[in-house]
Amino acid sequence: MSPAPDLQTVVSDIADEMRQRRDRGQVATYIPELARVDAQAFGLVVIDNDGNVAAGGDSDTPFSIQSISKVFTLTLALGRIGDRLWRRVGREPSGSPFNSIVQLERERGIPRNPFINAGAIAVTDAIVSGHQPREALGDILRFMQFIADDPSIMIDDAVAASEQRTGFRNVALANYMKSFDVLDNPVDFTLGVYFHHCAIAMSCRQLATAGRFLAHLGRNPATGHLVVQPERARRINAIMLTCGHYDGSGEFAYRVGLPGKSGVGGGILAIAPGKASIAVWSPGLDDNGNSHLGRIALEALTKRMGWSIFGA
Amino acid sequence: MSPAPDLQTVVSDIADEMRQRRDRGQVATYIPELARVDAQAFGLVVIDNDGNVAAGGDSDTPFSIQSISKVFTLTLALGRIGDRLWRRVGREPSGSPFNSIVQLERERGIPRNPFINAGAIAVTDAIVSGHQPREALGDILRFMQFIADDPSIMIDDAVAASEQRTGFRNVALANYMKSFDVLDNPVDFTLGVYFHHCAIAMSCRQLATAGRFLAHLGRNPATGHLVVQPERARRINAIMLTCGHYDGSGEFAYRVGLPGKSGVGGGILAIAPGKASIAVWSPGLDDNGNSHLGRIALEALTKRMGWSIFGA
Amino acid sequence: MSPAPDLQTVVSDIADEMRQRRDRGQVATYIPELARVDAQAFGLVVIDNDGNVAAGGDSDTPFSIQSISKVFTLTLALGRIGDRLWRRVGREPSGSPFNSIVQLERERGIPRNPFINAGAIAVTDAIVSGHQPREALGDILRFMQFIADDPSIMIDDAVAASEQRTGFRNVALANYMKSFDVLDNPVDFTLGVYFHHCAIAMSCRQLATAGRFLAHLGRNPATGHLVVQPERARRINAIMLTCGHYDGSGEFAYRVGLPGKSGVGGGILAIAPGKASIAVWSPGLDDNGNSHLGRIALEALTKRMGWSIFGA
Amino acid sequence: MSPAPDLQTVVSDIADEMRQRRDRGQVATYIPELARVDAQAFGLVVIDNDGNVAAGGDSDTPFSIQSISKVFTLTLALGRIGDRLWRRVGREPSGSPFNSIVQLERERGIPRNPFINAGAIAVTDAIVSGHQPREALGDILRFMQFIADDPSIMIDDAVAASEQRTGFRNVALANYMKSFDVLDNPVDFTLGVYFHHCAIAMSCRQLATAGRFLAHLGRNPATGHLVVQPERARRINAIMLTCGHYDGSGEFAYRVGLPGKSGVGGGILAIAPGKASIAVWSPGLDDNGNSHLGRIALEALTKRMGWSIFGA
Repeated sequence: MSPAPDLQTVVSDIADEMRQRRDRGQVATYIPELARVDAQAFGLVVIDNDGNVAAGGDSDTPFSIQSISKVFTLTLALGRIGDRLWRRVGREPSGSPFNSIVQLERERGIPRNPFINAGAIAVTDAIVSGHQPREALGDILRFMQFIADDPSIMIDDAVAASEQRTGFRNVALANYMKSFDVLDNPVDFTLGVYFHHCAIAMSCRQLATAGRFLAHLGRNPATGHLVVQPERARRINAIMLTCGHYDGSGEFAYRVGLPGKSGVGGGILAIAPGKASIAVWSPGLDDNGNSHLGRIALEALTKRMGWSIFGA
Repeated sequence: MSPAPDLQTVVSDIADEMRQRRDRGQVATYIPELARVDAQAFGLVVIDNDGNVAAGGDSDTPFSIQSISKVFTLTLALGRIGDRLWRRVGREPSGSPFNSIVQLERERGIPRNPFINAGAIAVTDAIVSGHQPREALGDILRFMQFIADDPSIMIDDAVAASEQRTGFRNVALANYMKSFDVLDNPVDFTLGVYFHHCAIAMSCRQLATAGRFLAHLGRNPATGHLVVQPERARRINAIMLTCGHYDGSGEFAYRVGLPGKSGVGGGILAIAPGKASIAVWSPGLDDNGNSHLGRIALEALTKRMGWSIFGA
Repeated sequence: MSPAPDLQTVVSDIADEMRQRRDRGQVATYIPELARVDAQAFGLVVIDNDGNVAAGGDSDTPFSIQSISKVFTLTLALGRIGDRLWRRVGREPSGSPFNSIVQLERERGIPRNPFINAGAIAVTDAIVSGHQPREALGDILRFMQFIADDPSIMIDDAVAASEQRTGFRNVALANYMKSFDVLDNPVDFTLGVYFHHCAIAMSCRQLATAGRFLAHLGRNPATGHLVVQPERARRINAIMLTCGHYDGSGEFAYRVGLPGKSGVGGGILAIAPGKASIAVWSPGLDDNGNSHLGRIALEALTKRMGWSIFGA
Repeated sequence: MSPAPDLQTVVSDIADEMRQRRDRGQVATYIPELARVDAQAFGLVVIDNDGNVAAGGDSDTPFSIQSISKVFTLTLALGRIGDRLWRRVGREPSGSPFNSIVQLERERGIPRNPFINAGAIAVTDAIVSGHQPREALGDILRFMQFIADDPSIMIDDAVAASEQRTGFRNVALANYMKSFDVLDNPVDFTLGVYFHHCAIAMSCRQLATAGRFLAHLGRNPATGHLVVQPERARRINAIMLTCGHYDGSGEFAYRVGLPGKSGVGGGILAIAPGKASIAVWSPGLDDNGNSHLGRIALEALTKRMGWSIFGA
């Protein structure tokens, strides 16, 4: 065995390497707020279970976390209604693009997992649960601020408004589920909350901080506060591994070997269970809609740190 | 932290508990050889990386490994042609039953992963690769005997003959791929080898022995012999986790938290990376075609040993 | 050849026979206004190209024409924008239920034909075409009154309101098409008009009168007024034959042998080209959502009159 | 009304026009025997119910009738087992390409109609029905010779051999149906007969002669011999109209307005019920696999003769 590599050195090296690469994928362009992001940006933050923080690149620049928010709404919904959540959403990989409606027709409105859009809308509906959208959204935002230990985290209203204006596919998905009685609340209530929580802006540092409980059996390693039961933390990690990257989830497991969740804003939250919470950000996406350099950086990180859950 | 539980005690306890359960799932009946297996049978063998063997129940009764053979043909094919294998088969979960042909039409004959039937046939075709079926099959059998360290392992010809006589769906899958030029060899050559390697009979002890290299970075922990590159061992584990249980793969990851591969004969091979190789067998199947008690036993084992890859 | 049967005798006989049958299918129940219709009702009106009118049963009771309105909005849209309509909707049978969204995903938001819900929404959007919903709806209603020669035809606002309140599936279809830019107008404009034109209430007499132009090469046989070009009338008939009864279109062609369009209110408009316009109504539906007795009555009528377009 | 056009003049004019067109579609190339056919060939023969024959172009050149044979095997199978045939094959348009296997999975092995490949294989299986392939094939060939009034009609063995050698997709379809018990005979028996009857070679003159019974209520107009019951002739025409041109059936009904069946050899048999049997041949195909000029010629013929079943 070689001596354990120094985490900050590894993170700095990777950030340097990524900065020099020319292949950066394609920045999402379906809303202007995402399209105008700097394609050269790259950030990486790793927080280990001992509280050591290693940061590289644009580690404090906020970006739109988009679908990464689905990890946290899943956590919140499980905390609220527990396993009843699984009556309205499955836990299987989908074998379809993130916004496919075909699977919903075959399975009578029950989305395959909480990380495809339909599934995340169903999870959001469980959080709304009879409340006004504003209250539900406030709950989600406060939860994010709490676990990221940073009350300055905000929703980017311009992003939310753009999503709401152009999100016809999501409106279709939500109404389709509503036609099967999978949603309890008015469609526009649930979608309003959904579009807004996807528009939360966070930096890599904030995101890695927020993910710590998943690397530490559901508990904030700094404060000892229990965010979710250990069993649930494990299971959220399992869903991240099998479903976290849309139709590229198998590829991510194969190459990176960590549970992770990507967003179309170019961020990825990855968890090394028992070891560390990791956030990476690079806005250019690959064909499956996952951060191109983000995935490459995580592959390098896992390899150098020996963190793959599939053998080290 | 509580003291580490004693492996043999845990295994014996689980075997006892399983023996007493009434819910046993449904034994496969599509061929008489599987239908007549004793539904009460249960076996469990764990071999850790230090070479300790813990056995419970019918640990030395041979059973038809069926789809578990796909893990070993994948290993063999990767050893032979390396990453060229991925030109003919993908690495993504399928979101469909194991014998679905729909996905093949949408993706022009390329199976989604090596563990659905179509994918395993494509992998087998890579092993046949211009040879006579008898030779290819001999290679596979010798490989199994070698890694299981037991030259007595045999193919059950009656099972193979029954599969061949009734396997119209697999004949359809193979011809469908052939129509897209995904198979190189005559369809009946490849299918002959496929039906036979699925009919290999092994006990839990033999199977757990054969899986050791996947728990030990590709290397036989007893002899030090390298079966596959460490990188490949990790990646085979990743595919087992995301695709190893057909349309119940997400559920298995969620509950058990280990890479695994099930067979319709009621066996499951599971890997605790860096820790142990595990084989369990109980012939009754759940709705997804995976061993009902096998999955429950593995869930109990992972929990008591703290082996989940998603946090311990 | 036997002498031509007397049309009124045939119609009366069929109405009598239908009144006595016990098998009446299931009345639609998804909105209360349809559910409370008398399941015993039956009406049949035939108007031949010489202007003879034969009526039987409840021939003057208004019912909700529902999807039959799609024939008339198709006519109106073709009159307005001609073959440009076919850029946004196809002309092929769908091989799927009337409200399937799967086909839309495969064909990027272009509905297969104007008679599935998605297609009819796309056609309605072409009629709205920048106008206010109220104006577009007024145009459709006036067109119906004009061709049915009866200014008393009205929209049933209670039906329209119920449809709008419960039509989540249609909202999904419309938003899905909007996400592919297949619709030009705000989704709620187009859907408002769609839900209202489906809620037009007409009697068999009014409906048969309105259909005369399709039996007479596009021209009102009474006034000589040209409603659509002869070529277009033929083609609307062709689409009615291949697509007029959802996933029972082949069955209808096979048994009845006439172009026709059914509605979930239990009405069917059928055309014997060159001979007659026919309206039948019986609220009980078969498994495909088409009027059970309506189809049987039309089969009897075609047979006795020798009107099948497939040979007489 | 203008005076009735002279049939021979119309046919000659159309043949001349077609000869001069440059757009000829793409000749099928999947087997060498079809690929080497002269792309410039064009033939048209019309036989009206009074026995008048009008011929133009290459009216006596034999070509591979391919899927057109499905009309005749359907006729033969209905004559043998009557409506029991519909237990194994449906009568609805498919909304999918001719060789799609997706629909078969959704509907558990029952093909949607007798004119997609799977359906025609199921129909052929009903003809084989316990006999040796050679006998079944002899029956089919004799039936063709009888209704075409020409004992010289032969099977092109080279075409049949090529189809058999390359027809992996059809082998897949047949085995897939066999896995659902939809086929009674050994798969290779049924497929052998299927590949051979698709390889029957006929000229336009022979084909139009063979189709007369469909234009004349099931009866040979020359001899008065009843080939099928009138009801069945009508219904075969209905299936030709809704399903005769694969995923271009709606388009054919819309433009031509006659029941018809196309083959990948470039032939089309069309029926003007009560009026005439028509055969056209031009080897270049359109995107849906139907004869490009054949369809255009039929559209011109129907228009000039006023033969559309949708209004004249």
